[in-house]
Amino acid sequence: MKFLDLDFEERNQYIKNKYGRRVFFAGNKHGVITLVEHIKKNSKPNPELLVPVEGVWGIQFAYKYQVKIKYMIVCTEEMNSNESIMLLETLMDDDSELRAYLVSKKVFNKVSEKANSAGILALCKFPKRDLEDLNVDKNALVVILDGLEILGNVGTIVRSADGTDVSAVIITNKKTRLIHPKFIKSSQGSCFKVPIVEADFKDVHQWLVKNDFRIILTDTRSSLNYYEESYEGRVAIVMGSERYGISKDWYDTDYAGIKIPMFGDCDSLNVGIATTVILYEATLKKKKMLTRFI
Amino acid sequence: MKFLDLDFEERNQYIKNKYGRRVFFAGNKHGVITLVEHIKKNSKPNPELLVPVEGVWGIQFAYKYQVKIKYMIVCTEEMNSNESIMLLETLMDDDSELRAYLVSKKVFNKVSEKANSAGILALCKFPKRDLEDLNVDKNALVVILDGLEILGNVGTIVRSADGTDVSAVIITNKKTRLIHPKFIKSSQGSCFKVPIVEADFKDVHQWLVKNDFRIILTDTRSSLNYYEESYEGRVAIVMGSERYGISKDWYDTDYAGIKIPMFGDCDSLNVGIATTVILYEATLKKKKMLTRFI
Repeated sequence: MKFLDLDFEERNQYIKNKYGRRVFFAGNKHGVITLVEHIKKNSKPNPELLVPVEGVWGIQFAYKYQVKIKYMIVCTEEMNSNESIMLLETLMDDDSELRAYLVSKKVFNKVSEKANSAGILALCKFPKRDLEDLNVDKNALVVILDGLEILGNVGTIVRSADGTDVSAVIITNKKTRLIHPKFIKSSQGSCFKVPIVEADFKDVHQWLVKNDFRIILTDTRSSLNYYEESYEGRVAIVMGSERYGISKDWYDTDYAGIKIPMFGDCDSLNVGIATTVILYEATLKKKKMLTRFI
Repeated sequence: MKFLDLDFEERNQYIKNKYGRRVFFAGNKHGVITLVEHIKKNSKPNPELLVPVEGVWGIQFAYKYQVKIKYMIVCTEEMNSNESIMLLETLMDDDSELRAYLVSKKVFNKVSEKANSAGILALCKFPKRDLEDLNVDKNALVVILDGLEILGNVGTIVRSADGTDVSAVIITNKKTRLIHPKFIKSSQGSCFKVPIVEADFKDVHQWLVKNDFRIILTDTRSSLNYYEESYEGRVAIVMGSERYGISKDWYDTDYAGIKIPMFGDCDSLNVGIATTVILYEATLKKKKMLTRFI
């Protein structure tokens, strides 16, 4: 029997037969549907930090990084490839606590944001860490995002942080809500891999001092160019908000400043771009790859 | 008399008295209003490449780079600062061909996209160049964007191209429409400064060969890392589309390849970010600023 040859009622029956009491039918007003709606609108507390992840690609990412998936919402009518049923079976086989909710196309479209989510939506526990969870080696590089206002910028930076092997992204003066499908999309799933911490300035500063980090603020008014910095030892690069830059708190610390020189007329770069330019410089030096220039 | 103390009818009268026959009242269906609507919807040919630019900041940018402004659409009710009336007067005094159209709040909101456009919208001639207009010195750096699909990425790259003193941004296999307010916004106005050319691959290739450019393709499969390249002489950096990379055309040329190493699990960076990382490396070397590392 090929799953894709079945009609949607037969598909539902197949899943129900295979996973029995862990499979439910859910209508328009079922608790799991209203839960997704509340999470998306941020209209109720979300203590478990559940976040909806749609489609094969995103859910595979969550699975790869061992993110806990609590519920699957499944629309068999929308399952148009073997990948999505195979992924569902892998997840259900792998975690005996996982429950699946079968829904109609109409109900699925109520909770789904993507056209190509292949009939599967996972409610995952967002893996947010505390400062004390971070495992930093003696050459660690962390990025601190202070008061960033645009979620897409935070997501892009997390993707770049993955690409440059950064130990953690720490958010201070938080202005964005990470529990949002846009964050997963803009980070291209890297948000499940790179450790992310949201914390107060004071706690972050204490943690940095305790762990012997050098604090480097990126500020167009600094005299040192980013490529003149050695980035040796434990380093925390602080990036400021799109509109206001880095908050005063950080200027009261014992810091060094760096800048990216601007050779044209525009006075700054997009914060995601500026962060990545610096992260590559820092990472290549930390990995001793930039000593090639003599 | 202070302009801001006047009511909107008095303000209109002030402008009309000062600039006489170059000032018109325009209603809902006036030609200039339907023109803006057609440009935004791309629903009629736009041979003059007119593009609407709103607000003090954007229009000042256009003025600074001597972009030809053909019409001003002015809503005196929305003029909430001296800056906007002063800018209007500067523009009208400076160009005796410029016409101003006074409109109601309702009409202005029909053509305006921004909340803070301060009652002024300029129809500017987009300064698109031809290959032959480009003035390239012997150390020139140009960026070629091949088939990029997201206008915001093209805009961000133009902003970075300004920041890194690039001679030109050349677009091949065009998939975006530059005559769009989003482009001006994402480039932060740099689109009026950095020379931008849209041309066929064949013409661009011929021009590069004729002008002794080295062609460098950015491709994750290349063996040379971007920081190992010297970027000496005239260099054209080619970046490919978000989904499909660089088109086959370019692989049939005499090219060198570079890559940005990925140290994590994600397999690529956002194209705007990747471009900027490379442009900084190239520009710093061209300006002999990276020889500081011994």
